[in-house]
Amino acid sequence: MSQQLPDSIPPGLFAARAEAIADAARELALAGWTPATSSNFSMRIDAEHAAITISGRDKGKLGRDDIMLVDMQGHAVGTDARPSAETALHTQIYRRWPGAQAVLHTHSRTQSVASRLFARDGLIRLEGWELQKAIAGHTTHESVLEIPVFPNTQHMPELVARVDAWLDAGKPLAAYLIDGHGIYTWGRDMAEARRHLEALEFLLGCELDLRRLNA
Amino acid sequence: MSQQLPDSIPPGLFAARAEAIADAARELALAGWTPATSSNFSMRIDAEHAAITISGRDKGKLGRDDIMLVDMQGHAVGTDARPSAETALHTQIYRRWPGAQAVLHTHSRTQSVASRLFARDGLIRLEGWELQKAIAGHTTHESVLEIPVFPNTQHMPELVARVDAWLDAGKPLAAYLIDGHGIYTWGRDMAEARRHLEALEFLLGCELDLRRLNA
Amino acid sequence: MSQQLPDSIPPGLFAARAEAIADAARELALAGWTPATSSNFSMRIDAEHAAITISGRDKGKLGRDDIMLVDMQGHAVGTDARPSAETALHTQIYRRWPGAQAVLHTHSRTQSVASRLFARDGLIRLEGWELQKAIAGHTTHESVLEIPVFPNTQHMPELVARVDAWLDAGKPLAAYLIDGHGIYTWGRDMAEARRHLEALEFLLGCELDLRRLNA
Amino acid sequence: MSQQLPDSIPPGLFAARAEAIADAARELALAGWTPATSSNFSMRIDAEHAAITISGRDKGKLGRDDIMLVDMQGHAVGTDARPSAETALHTQIYRRWPGAQAVLHTHSRTQSVASRLFARDGLIRLEGWELQKAIAGHTTHESVLEIPVFPNTQHMPELVARVDAWLDAGKPLAAYLIDGHGIYTWGRDMAEARRHLEALEFLLGCELDLRRLNA
Repeated sequence: MSQQLPDSIPPGLFAARAEAIADAARELALAGWTPATSSNFSMRIDAEHAAITISGRDKGKLGRDDIMLVDMQGHAVGTDARPSAETALHTQIYRRWPGAQAVLHTHSRTQSVASRLFARDGLIRLEGWELQKAIAGHTTHESVLEIPVFPNTQHMPELVARVDAWLDAGKPLAAYLIDGHGIYTWGRDMAEARRHLEALEFLLGCELDLRRLNA
Repeated sequence: MSQQLPDSIPPGLFAARAEAIADAARELALAGWTPATSSNFSMRIDAEHAAITISGRDKGKLGRDDIMLVDMQGHAVGTDARPSAETALHTQIYRRWPGAQAVLHTHSRTQSVASRLFARDGLIRLEGWELQKAIAGHTTHESVLEIPVFPNTQHMPELVARVDAWLDAGKPLAAYLIDGHGIYTWGRDMAEARRHLEALEFLLGCELDLRRLNA
Repeated sequence: MSQQLPDSIPPGLFAARAEAIADAARELALAGWTPATSSNFSMRIDAEHAAITISGRDKGKLGRDDIMLVDMQGHAVGTDARPSAETALHTQIYRRWPGAQAVLHTHSRTQSVASRLFARDGLIRLEGWELQKAIAGHTTHESVLEIPVFPNTQHMPELVARVDAWLDAGKPLAAYLIDGHGIYTWGRDMAEARRHLEALEFLLGCELDLRRLNA
Repeated sequence: MSQQLPDSIPPGLFAARAEAIADAARELALAGWTPATSSNFSMRIDAEHAAITISGRDKGKLGRDDIMLVDMQGHAVGTDARPSAETALHTQIYRRWPGAQAVLHTHSRTQSVASRLFARDGLIRLEGWELQKAIAGHTTHESVLEIPVFPNTQHMPELVARVDAWLDAGKPLAAYLIDGHGIYTWGRDMAEARRHLEALEFLLGCELDLRRLNA
């Protein structure tokens, strides 16, 4: 499927972002966090556009041709390809955080199980872990990091509304879980988004372990 | 051991299926789902024949010569090799689902443990997981996916009869477990069979985790 | 350290056994079953000799020079190298089973934890698992496989006496655990010994999982 | 960033230590024990200097240029780079043990969870494990190995004082945990430090498993 670019987007910029997304997807697939063609990944191109994974592709074998352009309303631009069903959640993040350059959504077993376990409380509270310092803005293990768990739905506008409601209430947000589903996190660049994802996977795993130990 | 093919089967077709089975077997062995020469894999050749793994071979080192031809009654065709003891379960699937092209039977620790745990109930009920959408025909996490657990036996006709009884009762079937043993699943092509297997391994693992967490 | 061979042992035979031991050791180390230079491995050379790993070497980097010759009393033959402290347990197996060609002793976390858990009972009873059929002589999941757990000691003759007592009582023995330590198993060739080890690791892991699930 | 060396330090010595640190870091990162740029590693250069990882680098991609020189008070020598925040804990170890040549600090999930679980007791007591013999000075599973767990703080002098207090009380110390954080261990050379780390990760994992089994 060919991707036509608007004149305002340098082909080299799109190619570089597509490459970075495919590299991250392959590494995260190798870690087992994208089972059965799930998960999706994107990077900002400019104020109006983002590059995002095409729906349903095997994330372990992703190449540049599996990435497409969308506008910030989540519509395909210059291609007949279909973007991931959850594109609206990515573009919402780019609209709400002008500094966000990369969004990662994965589905590890730890993320899925944690989302089910903490769904009753609506959030998971992380506190006392040195690794919280891996999240931008956190400089001590004594800070508190709250990750909301939103109910799952196949209707994306509902999820967009829940994220908006959280943010409009003035609460800090570094990532969120969707019940029975997975995690969304982001960063100022792909390295920061990856660091956030890796730290949250680790911390959710630790919290599950402590509960298995009745600690 | 040499494999003679009936005139009706193009050698290239058999070779391609044998290659695809060996590739899948090596990847699933690498994942640790085929311990100690267990597990078996097949692909349909035509309405009357399937290619299947020869009994007892190390699945991590499988090559084209470890695959043989059987008819839909599970008898060896054009070879003295012995097919997997459980060949009858593969050919049953090809007979009951004319669209099935690949059947996978593995033995992961998660599959074995889940089969023991849920044997008392005779089935495991999956509900509320986004990844259920990886199973053909499921478009929402709100659907219910029932995977039966049949008692183990060394006498294959008993197992065949149990699968027939389930199907004859009109119940949907995407996969089944055998108690203390492993899983069977299938698909319209090898990619779909692999996606089903990967999704079910993931979902069984999540269900075990939730129970470990008393959730 | 140089290894002098008695005239009765063809250098090619010793080299082939040393190679096979080193290959197995590297693969088992990769699986994480030989932490911190633990574990030891041997193969029979003839009725009077075995090749065995030299004490204290990193099992992940084992080469032919890390293997030495011992007699069936566990004494070094033709070398100043020191054999593994537990050599007496290997040579006992070769003495008691004339058909045994390979002995594997590993230390996986599953093996260590299972040994502690089942030490009170003095044995672990495996029943109802299809994978029991991977153990020589077992043709159905309905058989019972008893693996004794012997108390640990730094004094090898005590362990040798416990194994002798078990065998002299006429009880079948395919493998044994030592409390807080690891497993010993063997086979008619390296492939069978590996299959036994892989199947037992799997089955012990399943039994621990069932107990974690209070099942 | 360029590293100027004092005349007393042969460039080849610094290069060799930097190489050894980078090699160890990459292998430990691969094992998943250094999530999200955490962890730090050092080697002694001489009585007055050590080579240590520069703060915040990805441990999986570490090269020689990511290692810098510090004095035994933890100050950068001959570079503008910033050493790891926890440098004071490394140099304390070199000051207190003149024979220590390598210090490893990692953050595995097992280490982090164990540190939280045992923080109430202030220590974890290891007893009855064969693998305790991997710790220098331990020759039997019957010995007792006590690993203290110190409260976490962002203020390094507090941690230094706690380690000093433990040592000044005459208690043996092979490693220590910091609550919600990770482990410190060391050795007479990098191989011994690695063996200590690997054995302790294994033993902490076994202790967590036993508790999950209510054993």
